[in-house]
Amino acid sequence: MSSRAEAAALDDADELRGFHDRFVVADDGLIYLDGNSLGRLPRDTARRLSEVVTDQWGQRLIRAWGEGWMELPYALGDRLGTELLGAAPGQVAIADSTTVCFYKLAAAALSARPGRTQIITDVDNFPTDRYVLESLAAERELEILWVRADPAAGPEPSQVAELVSDKTALVTFSQVNYRSAFILETRAITAIAHEAGALALWDLSHSAGAIPVALDADGIDLAVGCTYKYLNGGPGAPAYLYVRAEHQGALRQPIWGWLGRQDPFEMAPGYVPGEGISAMLSGTPPVLALTAVAAGLDLVIEAGVEAIRHKSIGLTEYAIALIDEWLAPLGCSVGSPRHAGRRGSHVALVHPEARGLTRRLIADGVIPDFRTPDVIRLGLSPLTTRFTDVHDGLDRVRRLLSN
Amino acid sequence: MSSRAEAAALDDADELRGFHDRFVVADDGLIYLDGNSLGRLPRDTARRLSEVVTDQWGQRLIRAWGEGWMELPYALGDRLGTELLGAAPGQVAIADSTTVCFYKLAAAALSARPGRTQIITDVDNFPTDRYVLESLAAERELEILWVRADPAAGPEPSQVAELVSDKTALVTFSQVNYRSAFILETRAITAIAHEAGALALWDLSHSAGAIPVALDADGIDLAVGCTYKYLNGGPGAPAYLYVRAEHQGALRQPIWGWLGRQDPFEMAPGYVPGEGISAMLSGTPPVLALTAVAAGLDLVIEAGVEAIRHKSIGLTEYAIALIDEWLAPLGCSVGSPRHAGRRGSHVALVHPEARGLTRRLIADGVIPDFRTPDVIRLGLSPLTTRFTDVHDGLDRVRRLLSN
Repeated sequence: MSSRAEAAALDDADELRGFHDRFVVADDGLIYLDGNSLGRLPRDTARRLSEVVTDQWGQRLIRAWGEGWMELPYALGDRLGTELLGAAPGQVAIADSTTVCFYKLAAAALSARPGRTQIITDVDNFPTDRYVLESLAAERELEILWVRADPAAGPEPSQVAELVSDKTALVTFSQVNYRSAFILETRAITAIAHEAGALALWDLSHSAGAIPVALDADGIDLAVGCTYKYLNGGPGAPAYLYVRAEHQGALRQPIWGWLGRQDPFEMAPGYVPGEGISAMLSGTPPVLALTAVAAGLDLVIEAGVEAIRHKSIGLTEYAIALIDEWLAPLGCSVGSPRHAGRRGSHVALVHPEARGLTRRLIADGVIPDFRTPDVIRLGLSPLTTRFTDVHDGLDRVRRLLSN
Repeated sequence: MSSRAEAAALDDADELRGFHDRFVVADDGLIYLDGNSLGRLPRDTARRLSEVVTDQWGQRLIRAWGEGWMELPYALGDRLGTELLGAAPGQVAIADSTTVCFYKLAAAALSARPGRTQIITDVDNFPTDRYVLESLAAERELEILWVRADPAAGPEPSQVAELVSDKTALVTFSQVNYRSAFILETRAITAIAHEAGALALWDLSHSAGAIPVALDADGIDLAVGCTYKYLNGGPGAPAYLYVRAEHQGALRQPIWGWLGRQDPFEMAPGYVPGEGISAMLSGTPPVLALTAVAAGLDLVIEAGVEAIRHKSIGLTEYAIALIDEWLAPLGCSVGSPRHAGRRGSHVALVHPEARGLTRRLIADGVIPDFRTPDVIRLGLSPLTTRFTDVHDGLDRVRRLLSN
């Protein structure tokens, strides 16, 4: 299991092995285990960006808004929604940063539950989500109930059930925890929120492109997520938001802008929300950034969620086996669920000196990332990470810890 | 004045004539008079994007965040602020859409004036600004006092003075009206707001890169603006926001995100706003979009505000002269200020059939844009519009109206 030849054999048997060459590989022999922070560059992205810039912006100028640009947030949203998120068309759009999308949907949910004063989330939720919730709680004088779960796991439905009541307006978590990779039970937790009369908002940033997502089937009300991790959309790429069809029309997001208005080009007096998901948008679509999103998304869709999940489980199982064999004797432990069904596509390697160790690894040409207080996070991106990368990266950890 | 040879002579004498070739020109002989809706593509943009994509994203991956990406919003903001907006460093950042930036700053201003219940703006303010104000007024149960000015002009300080009181929280206008091009008196109106104890927020979308702006000297509290008009940053490019140094720390924007927090990479519990202008940011910087902004901005800075303003006045004076000579007898009138000092860089051509006429012009290879109810807006972008473009475009209007 731990020899390099065995890792190479796993690569040979990998049905997604061809995708590695569809991405740019750094010339410096870098071992990149951080694709869940910034996904690699698809080979096709530069060409597609250049086409949109040169042929559309350069040649068509303002006319291009009527030749596809205005539809980009919805067309890409539908493609993402139907292929990767289990969402029927008309419920997903791409717009703004993850933070702004999360703010809009959380605010919309809170406004839809007037008189209710509590938000439920967990202390290990992704920081930007926690901060947005704090801002909304401060503005509206609401209370946040913080679930505290095992740091190697995440909130269980029972922990949520203990907290919900007729005071609960919003229940919100990340489907995959950004540190431990623990997968929360979206369907069960959403049902608990609904029984209490609350709405459920899920952050899919570490889910989409890594594990199957079933927004419609799981009864989820609202979701957001980022496109620059497993979707390989590029640094600071715009995010997506999902609003279940039955809530559209009733839910109102707080940032009323020209793009969310009926007949935006009429520029008429008085805001009237547009139809469907369009009412969730605010400003002008970021066309260049959306072009890069499209290029990354196409590769994930081409590979397919099933094959991606299969590879992802293979990679994380392999990493855990090497940690157990090589690194446990050197003071490391696994901070992610050992049951593959509860684990996303990264592995938390726990070591008391994680911060310094990460710095030394980066200097040595291996990039994971550090998460406070003691986690080296190994992001294993199914389209681009090879079993030999996992082998070589963890071998360097072993050498550093052995010296 | 009205012969093509005379237009060509004006082009020859234009000190900015060299800039035309620094931009991509459509192959179809298009006459583009809409650079104030979407600025042309700088020739350098595709190369710079490709470099950032291939060399930084592709090769440096996550390391690039520490090699300049994290500083982009502030570095570009300072460059824009100091060179074009009259703002000392540390007060301008680039982030989000204009709509989201406007929402953040308007909300911050309202929160800084608790107990005050009124917002002052004008019925002809840019639609997205009006809609955002409506959303904030609805959420916070505030009242909007709408100034109604001459449609060919804009609010005068005296009209604002009549409305302000100790109920006024916020006074907000566009410096240059998006339809008439009327330039409002930023300094006088801001002083009136301050005397009443209110804050002033200015939208510079039709100012920056077209007319001189003096944020610090004019005592302005807050400002936002877009980068895809005269700054040529590309379709849906991110916007900028300005917060006067003395207000930073006291003003709190509502969308608390990881980027606006102290030590964002610590991901620590509890939001604590970052230092200075950084507290106004929320989500991850859109690196590809910022790269295109930088390319457009560099050209405007190279040309210089003084030369740009000189050319802009020449273009709008020339357009008005042709309208008076050719088009007034055909039922057209000028819907922009005749005094150059009160006029931005576009000209409103008023005709009762403006909507249909715009459609026929576009079919005929001339692109202005239509603004309800009766305006054909001629955007004359100083770096890219030639006097012969103005001549040829208005000559087509003359022919269409004569047939």
